[in-house]
Amino acid sequence: MGILVINCGSSTLKYKLFETKGERAISFGVIERIGEEESAVKYCIAGGRVNEKKRKVPSHDYAFGLVADILRDALCEIPDSHMSVDAVGHRVVHGGSKYSDSILIDSQVIADIKGYINLAPLHNPPNLAGIEAAMKVLPVPQVAVFDTAFHQSMPEHAYTYGLPYKLCEKHGIRRYGFHGSSHAFVSQYAADLMGLPLEEMKMITCHLGSGSSITAIQNGRSVDTSMGMTPLAGVMMGTRTGSFDPSITYFLEDKEGLSHKELDSLLNKKSGLLGVSGISNDLRDILSAAKGGNQRAQLAIAMHNYGIIKTIGAYAAAMNGVDAIVFTAGIGENSSDIREAICSHLSYLGVVVDKQLNRDADGACVVSEVGSCVNILVVPTDEELFIARETERCVADQCFSSAHEKPKTVVR
Amino acid sequence: MGILVINCGSSTLKYKLFETKGERAISFGVIERIGEEESAVKYCIAGGRVNEKKRKVPSHDYAFGLVADILRDALCEIPDSHMSVDAVGHRVVHGGSKYSDSILIDSQVIADIKGYINLAPLHNPPNLAGIEAAMKVLPVPQVAVFDTAFHQSMPEHAYTYGLPYKLCEKHGIRRYGFHGSSHAFVSQYAADLMGLPLEEMKMITCHLGSGSSITAIQNGRSVDTSMGMTPLAGVMMGTRTGSFDPSITYFLEDKEGLSHKELDSLLNKKSGLLGVSGISNDLRDILSAAKGGNQRAQLAIAMHNYGIIKTIGAYAAAMNGVDAIVFTAGIGENSSDIREAICSHLSYLGVVVDKQLNRDADGACVVSEVGSCVNILVVPTDEELFIARETERCVADQCFSSAHEKPKTVVR
Repeated sequence: MGILVINCGSSTLKYKLFETKGERAISFGVIERIGEEESAVKYCIAGGRVNEKKRKVPSHDYAFGLVADILRDALCEIPDSHMSVDAVGHRVVHGGSKYSDSILIDSQVIADIKGYINLAPLHNPPNLAGIEAAMKVLPVPQVAVFDTAFHQSMPEHAYTYGLPYKLCEKHGIRRYGFHGSSHAFVSQYAADLMGLPLEEMKMITCHLGSGSSITAIQNGRSVDTSMGMTPLAGVMMGTRTGSFDPSITYFLEDKEGLSHKELDSLLNKKSGLLGVSGISNDLRDILSAAKGGNQRAQLAIAMHNYGIIKTIGAYAAAMNGVDAIVFTAGIGENSSDIREAICSHLSYLGVVVDKQLNRDADGACVVSEVGSCVNILVVPTDEELFIARETERCVADQCFSSAHEKPKTVVR
Repeated sequence: MGILVINCGSSTLKYKLFETKGERAISFGVIERIGEEESAVKYCIAGGRVNEKKRKVPSHDYAFGLVADILRDALCEIPDSHMSVDAVGHRVVHGGSKYSDSILIDSQVIADIKGYINLAPLHNPPNLAGIEAAMKVLPVPQVAVFDTAFHQSMPEHAYTYGLPYKLCEKHGIRRYGFHGSSHAFVSQYAADLMGLPLEEMKMITCHLGSGSSITAIQNGRSVDTSMGMTPLAGVMMGTRTGSFDPSITYFLEDKEGLSHKELDSLLNKKSGLLGVSGISNDLRDILSAAKGGNQRAQLAIAMHNYGIIKTIGAYAAAMNGVDAIVFTAGIGENSSDIREAICSHLSYLGVVVDKQLNRDADGACVVSEVGSCVNILVVPTDEELFIARETERCVADQCFSSAHEKPKTVVR
């Protein structure tokens, strides 16, 4: 079965085509700077070299047409392949309080995703544009996989804010959490790697990238997560503040004469590692500057690690214990220094990292010593694969439940 | 030595007169609704009954004159007493980044307290009014004891926010923390009670009252605290939100058409336990409603406890362990149910509470079992006594360092 995974941002369209048998990626690519003067189209077919073209791509609709063309070529290039695009899985950021699972897209789902634009004004509109473009070109089942869905299992006391209750009800104000596909993927992967049932574990997953979030997973279900109603909250990130005293927002507006839009941009795009270090939003640059003695870089790294340490501690308390801590995403997978610095603060939990294993970590592996009271793991995340699996499951469920025909193939 | 402790709010003046020998309170009282049509004057002398009068009290100046009169009477009533008011200690909320200790008040200190009005617009002005009134009537040494001073020992990575660094420098934006006198007082008291040196311990002090803050104290120094630049941040309180996704502030302003002043009032006065439960800001009322089956009351209590549990967990991680947890202030001292609920989530740290001891706790005591890996204590706070001690110390230091005459006595 061929499943196309689509992830649309405001000016980007990423795709990845999977053959579900063997979970093989047949082709992947990205179209960047959609709507600008010149867009970049990059793609790769069957593990070949990366093709790169400059084109004018005015819209997500147009971009999706290009992807369909690329895929047609891709499927022709693969000898003896009878593969087709049988379903499309879409990353959708916000599914509100309604969607606790992935779902086959129909008009109601589209209306709901529109309804949640209010809560994700930068993300849901391009996600919708991708869905609408795909539905025009590929009349196969389309599945929405929500970033928020995995966190819908949080108990009410974890997702409710200390604001007036009726006001929160009125506007849908609560903790939703994001990166759900990643936390779900790596938690299951880590449990499988340890040979332990996820359903009986207390696990903390640290998705540390340009955006970062940490999740407490008890018996396989998200019970708390560091991002909030929006992805601004939680630990400090590349350009986002993370959480801070909320009264500083209007203090800053008053002092600097900022509009809400300017403040939002300041907090989301000019803060975090970039704002503190004054150097870069990329932790690698900051680590290098810190090694060279730059004090602001050293401060940014200390703050970054300290926020993660405190959040891990908070979730260990929230679950009254922790069996495994998993590091994933750009920083979590690749920076052994950061993992070591964080874990060195967790010896009170009985964490003992094997420094050699941690330094040599490549791919999914355990990096704690055998006697460590808490298993420490590195697991590369794969949100596209998770979306492909969810899409396959939803389509199979539909076939099973409604005895529909096999979805029609259009591409090829 | 007689030390008068003064704590001025926007429409209140509280006082307490101590005889330092034996740390005995000679008289205490409060003047409420200063500046309103009718003010209430309540006071008590030498453990006698509480006197209550209605008077028109137009200003803090006038209020302080009344206090001076009461004290004159009080000192006459005490037979064989040669006591006098030898110094005045003032509670001052905000000492900015400059004051890490209590200090004898001079023109520079007054100018600095004025300078920090910016950071504590509701608190520093009445604190200043109290200082100025006292200086007019009592020309004895006056000492400022800052709520923020104890937390000035926090490391930079704990007090810096993930906002643009230069903007924070420009406006003095950082974590300051509050309730410093209480955290300092109970941490020393707890160490003395355990017979252990505070300088070698990791301690978490939970000041849980109508305003609540939690502090991580390592080797006798505050290394982190839950309140932030303002007392809004941290755990959920009687009417304050505690921390939440900061982007909700301007989301709410947009949705509800709120001014900054209205939003500030909503977050500080209509939220927290009151806002969530819809019942009361008093935990006792909410506990009672929760026992009667009220779901919103149950939610408010669960949120209250959960935030405290997570903060204790975060600080255990921040210090890489914890030797003692101390409960103080209205809720911390009086609600054994809340202490038990919180501690029941901390068995992963080896916390074992003696339920009987906890239920029977009265005054300062240890409520954990002998074998508990972490000592759990209840310690009644006494911020006035702490201010009196600080005042005595500052005056003694001055006498020692500058060989000044003994401060002149004015009252009596």
